[in-house]
Amino acid sequence: VSVQRLAVVGTGLIGASIGLAARDAGVGSVRGFDRDRRALAMASALGAVEPAPSLPDAVAAAELVVVAVPPRHLAATVAGSAAAAPADCVVTDTGSIKRGVCAANEEIARFVGGHPLCGAASRGPELARADMFRGATWFLTPTGTTDCGALERVEAFVAVLGAMPVRIAADVHDRAVALTSHLPHALANLLVEQLQGERIDGVDPLDFPTRFLRETTRVAGANPDVWRDIFLENRDFVAASLAKHRRLAEELERALAAGDSAFVGAWIDRASAARARLLERDG
Amino acid sequence: VSVQRLAVVGTGLIGASIGLAARDAGVGSVRGFDRDRRALAMASALGAVEPAPSLPDAVAAAELVVVAVPPRHLAATVAGSAAAAPADCVVTDTGSIKRGVCAANEEIARFVGGHPLCGAASRGPELARADMFRGATWFLTPTGTTDCGALERVEAFVAVLGAMPVRIAADVHDRAVALTSHLPHALANLLVEQLQGERIDGVDPLDFPTRFLRETTRVAGANPDVWRDIFLENRDFVAASLAKHRRLAEELERALAAGDSAFVGAWIDRASAARARLLERDG
Repeated sequence: VSVQRLAVVGTGLIGASIGLAARDAGVGSVRGFDRDRRALAMASALGAVEPAPSLPDAVAAAELVVVAVPPRHLAATVAGSAAAAPADCVVTDTGSIKRGVCAANEEIARFVGGHPLCGAASRGPELARADMFRGATWFLTPTGTTDCGALERVEAFVAVLGAMPVRIAADVHDRAVALTSHLPHALANLLVEQLQGERIDGVDPLDFPTRFLRETTRVAGANPDVWRDIFLENRDFVAASLAKHRRLAEELERALAAGDSAFVGAWIDRASAARARLLERDG
Repeated sequence: VSVQRLAVVGTGLIGASIGLAARDAGVGSVRGFDRDRRALAMASALGAVEPAPSLPDAVAAAELVVVAVPPRHLAATVAGSAAAAPADCVVTDTGSIKRGVCAANEEIARFVGGHPLCGAASRGPELARADMFRGATWFLTPTGTTDCGALERVEAFVAVLGAMPVRIAADVHDRAVALTSHLPHALANLLVEQLQGERIDGVDPLDFPTRFLRETTRVAGANPDVWRDIFLENRDFVAASLAKHRRLAEELERALAAGDSAFVGAWIDRASAARARLLERDG
């Protein structure tokens, strides 16, 4: 491993999992800081990080800082970490939207935006796992001003944790996750919201959930603070994906109203083909 | 067990699972028939049924016939089974929409409509399981003309398979499953359809599926023939649930466009409360 001195700023589920995975991979020193003392103490108790009393203290000797704080604090914490860390220290983050944090820190050549796809619906360090990133896509969003050595250092580190680094432009990333992550999450929320309000001749449909209804709403309402920020920060792309979704839903509705068997059959066949392509991308 | 001579008409995944579960529960004779000779031979090889050469032959000595054929053949096969079976034999079915089959067979007092909620996304007897119905809701939809003894015989049988019989009116059932089953299934299809068509600066979002995207599209495009019939047969209630869904999605879209943090926060809180209620209904 090239990185031997790591700092993790924000020791929630993702930060603590990075600490555990880095230690498993033989990274010598993993210092951690979190403004939430309880989260820091828990991450320390789990062996994910050595706790530091302040952010500057955590990053003082680091070769790489990973910032894993909630969306609203991300841009400022990246800037603060870069300012406090040694001049040759590389900074990356794990935020799930990349335009804001990358634009705000464009001047910092040794900052590389990042986003691991790990699908966790919970939060807090309690459920941290060293194998959280094994086989996962880990997006990296360098800009025109990003230092090549910094990018390569983050790529090597991410690979050491078992993830697959994928370079992508920040705005392409944000449009893609609006479709693959934020839209599915929004549909799960919308679905439970709709069912919650229904009574059919006194029958509450939530009394008779199907297995798939449970599965498809697993993340509904999860991490309210984080997800509110995600939806709002990526609102242009999320709204666009919802608009397209409504058009497709309206097409189906019209075909059903008309009893258009051919349309419905072709629509299911398209879904079947798309689902088969998803299964090909094993992971 | 009261029922000792069972007939299963349609030996696909559901019919064969009923055969296996009945035999496990000590039902003495389980005769089966399927127009698809391959499905019948497979169900027989799995020990789910003794194969009969014809429908009349399968039901000739039965106390209970369970009809588990695709939606489009359901009403006629129920009528044919009742005509061929002994006069005191009870007939039930497993179709996932109940208005049509119940209205078509309203004259038959010893017919009781039924629908087990088992969440299978595959079809065919190959994946049949004796424990398919353990703990599952099994809807029964008696009408005003249904014989009480017939209803009780089916309830007792369903309980013997480990399921929980729930009496419900056919139209209430169909509105409820439009929400708990058909709408979620439609959203899964719509989601993969939308992602399938997208390219973002050459990036295919299906190349980077999130874990939740895989989960939430598990059933997408499954059993095309069966699901086309389900969507079409229940099209009024499915279209109504889609219309409501589109209104809720549009509200969210407007709130996002306006950057309405309070709306988005309250919307996630509602989803969170509804999801918690779903989790209470453990199963």
